[in-house]
Amino acid sequence: MTIAGLLLHGMKEVEVWLQTFAPGSHTPIHRHSCEEVFVVLKGSGTLYLASNSHSKYPGNPQEFPIFSNSTFHVPVNDAHQIWNTNKEEDLQFLVIVSRPPVKVFIYDDWHMPHTAAKLKFPYYWDEECYLMPPTKDKL
Amino acid sequence: MTIAGLLLHGMKEVEVWLQTFAPGSHTPIHRHSCEEVFVVLKGSGTLYLASNSHSKYPGNPQEFPIFSNSTFHVPVNDAHQIWNTNKEEDLQFLVIVSRPPVKVFIYDDWHMPHTAAKLKFPYYWDEECYLMPPTKDKL
Repeated sequence: MTIAGLLLHGMKEVEVWLQTFAPGSHTPIHRHSCEEVFVVLKGSGTLYLASNSHSKYPGNPQEFPIFSNSTFHVPVNDAHQIWNTNKEEDLQFLVIVSRPPVKVFIYDDWHMPHTAAKLKFPYYWDEECYLMPPTKDKL
Repeated sequence: MTIAGLLLHGMKEVEVWLQTFAPGSHTPIHRHSCEEVFVVLKGSGTLYLASNSHSKYPGNPQEFPIFSNSTFHVPVNDAHQIWNTNKEEDLQFLVIVSRPPVKVFIYDDWHMPHTAAKLKFPYYWDEECYLMPPTKDKL
């Protein structure tokens, strides 16, 4: 399913993505200055969310279980990370964001200062797939 | 499933709704000055969309089939209407809108001037359910 709600479809105010995480995979710890809503379609996992946005670094995050038909939102600029903790099933959800294109700031860990988080733009969530060099035939 | 993405959850830039239309039911013909994305979860129906936003009235709309896993978006201010044309199954979709709360302008028909469309705000999509007076017991 390709979601008809991307910048490339002419959207300017919202984007809707379908994302799938393989068992054991996860997003980086990151923040972005947009609203974000999740609707989990299948699988299960964990949301880590650091809401103490007034400190100098995210700090230890709260942990929330996520599962099929659970929905949640991440407030603007709160550092967060999502893990597929299920060993067998993909974790798949719809993600809705405002203010596209999203500018993602990446943290190495939960105690890295907000000011040190690195802007990665554009950010390809599937970078490892997209940027794999083409396999060369061995002659 | 209650979607955690409404104004009442603190959202300011997007809202996400889960909507279900019974067989034969439909939205009014309407427009709103926000972006709108649909992800159809189940059922089937028809989207009527009048994109000629430069005329004085919507005019005859284009007709698009919609079905489970189809996704589409409605451009800002284009008049549109959605019907559940399936006689047996509910039509259910996620709706994503920008600029909440949505201000809905309602048309009586496709040839009503844009300027005559009536603002209905706030608009309760499930008005017939919500506003039914309580049944009084007949003593």
